[in-house]
Amino acid sequence: MSGAAEVVNSSIPERPIIAIVGTGAVGAYYGGRLAQHGHDVHFLLRGDYAAVKQKGWRVTSCDGDFVLPADKVRAYDDPVRMPQADLVIVTLKTTANDQFESLVRPLLKERTAILTLQNGLGNEERLAELFGGERILGGTAFVCINRTGPGEVHHIADGLITLGEFGRPATRRAHQIGALLTGSKIPVKVLEDLRRARWEKLVWNVPFNGLSAALDLTTDLLIKTPAGEGLVREIMAEVFAAARAAGVELPAALMDAKITATRGMGEYKTSMHLDMRERRAMEIEAIMGCPIRVAHAAGIAVPKMEGMYQMLRLRDELRCK
Amino acid sequence: MSGAAEVVNSSIPERPIIAIVGTGAVGAYYGGRLAQHGHDVHFLLRGDYAAVKQKGWRVTSCDGDFVLPADKVRAYDDPVRMPQADLVIVTLKTTANDQFESLVRPLLKERTAILTLQNGLGNEERLAELFGGERILGGTAFVCINRTGPGEVHHIADGLITLGEFGRPATRRAHQIGALLTGSKIPVKVLEDLRRARWEKLVWNVPFNGLSAALDLTTDLLIKTPAGEGLVREIMAEVFAAARAAGVELPAALMDAKITATRGMGEYKTSMHLDMRERRAMEIEAIMGCPIRVAHAAGIAVPKMEGMYQMLRLRDELRCK
Repeated sequence: MSGAAEVVNSSIPERPIIAIVGTGAVGAYYGGRLAQHGHDVHFLLRGDYAAVKQKGWRVTSCDGDFVLPADKVRAYDDPVRMPQADLVIVTLKTTANDQFESLVRPLLKERTAILTLQNGLGNEERLAELFGGERILGGTAFVCINRTGPGEVHHIADGLITLGEFGRPATRRAHQIGALLTGSKIPVKVLEDLRRARWEKLVWNVPFNGLSAALDLTTDLLIKTPAGEGLVREIMAEVFAAARAAGVELPAALMDAKITATRGMGEYKTSMHLDMRERRAMEIEAIMGCPIRVAHAAGIAVPKMEGMYQMLRLRDELRCK
Repeated sequence: MSGAAEVVNSSIPERPIIAIVGTGAVGAYYGGRLAQHGHDVHFLLRGDYAAVKQKGWRVTSCDGDFVLPADKVRAYDDPVRMPQADLVIVTLKTTANDQFESLVRPLLKERTAILTLQNGLGNEERLAELFGGERILGGTAFVCINRTGPGEVHHIADGLITLGEFGRPATRRAHQIGALLTGSKIPVKVLEDLRRARWEKLVWNVPFNGLSAALDLTTDLLIKTPAGEGLVREIMAEVFAAARAAGVELPAALMDAKITATRGMGEYKTSMHLDMRERRAMEIEAIMGCPIRVAHAAGIAVPKMEGMYQMLRLRDELRCK
């Protein structure tokens, strides 16, 4: 690992080569915006590879539609054929994290920065183990976006990316990446404390993803009655306790704020709920398993989270039968 | 309350007047068998009252079909019009236990015995509070039975009734009631320890009713994979701990026996699962809430049971919206 001073001064080139690893809707949208604004973006994808090679990306967006024609999209189905990058943006589903080695390693130069925009906990840690912590940044995409067909993405609302360095305050590099995105019509907030942001996000993700996928209920129904809201708040309190065990003290007002925000979202289906209904792999470990293990390592009991986790694993195992 | 000696010597008349309170499928079947064998049985019912008055009960049964013609069924929709009974058999759904006072009180003479065949915990206790513990017996119907239409019942399998005195060993009266049932083609086991039998039943009812109704899964799926079987066993272990807190030490082998028995049941839908799917009231308090309160009163943590309980209450509250 490089020394602290080196990390603080680390930077990426003015005109970086950017690789998007795992191009679902989120990767396609953000990578597409960067490409639209003249950046050198290379997309690694699987399912839509043939469609995108043939007809490019078609993006309808609340921030302005755009098309990346086939002859301008640099799409790949194998990272070995891609150029080594200055910035790798990871938008893989966390259930594919066991493929980091084969998908990310071929893209790395000595100073390549890796920004993961994946859900939950444990992604930066795993990337750091494999490729060195000095490379790693993490962030969250607050965006409502769907793949609507092969090579087609619909960006419905929001779009903010928050990003920060892994295990240290924002560096020059973090601000450079922020500027890169901002210049490409993507709202950005650069974080001094990535870990806090991760735990704040979990305060919503753990109860709402977990209960919605366990019970097959939209988020509005989960907090429509006293028993449901009570359970959601108990689970949030467990996330607070786990965060505290990890050294992050969350503000008490966050709980009310998340409940209020959820009431404004209507009949919302969480990503885990959609995955459950479509019998796709759910991001159980990143959103539930990792926070539980953090709590357990600190001797904190999180029984409601554990119960949900076991129910989700039950569902996931049945899916594979 | 009468003294202990009085209870031990308590008995019911040779030819008792029997009242069935809450005549669903279970009450209709057992009461019907008693009537078929010449006993003086009076049925209190609600939903099927008009149909039964008009055409009686039609019972198809693995132990032999029978019909109780309309002119022979003593059916009532108001307990005040019924004769006072020597034996009241309660087969109400536990969600209607708040109606004990109005439904049972009018049927009582000084020495009337009350046998509840309801699910879960708390039924004998509530009846004892209202009517005196010396009257109360409890039991479990191990029977697979459905109402198939107005005045129509289908008895599919099993049929054993276990019964015992509330808070004391079997009395002369308990054996009399046992003989009454046995003489009417109903297999019976008279218990020396009713409370143990209640907790043994809960070892199955808590995990399988709870998880099936929370997750909308048949019992075979709940134990089809390691995560599911592990969760079921953890919940069973909580029931064991709650039973121990209540003074009942259950044999460790019971857990394997219940799992094995469940594997033999195929794609079984629990009563709570059926209630959930049909948007009927679920017996949450008797099967889950009461055992949890017993555990809490003894300072025992049962977090998995609590989590399920909250999820079921959430579902129940949504049902009423």
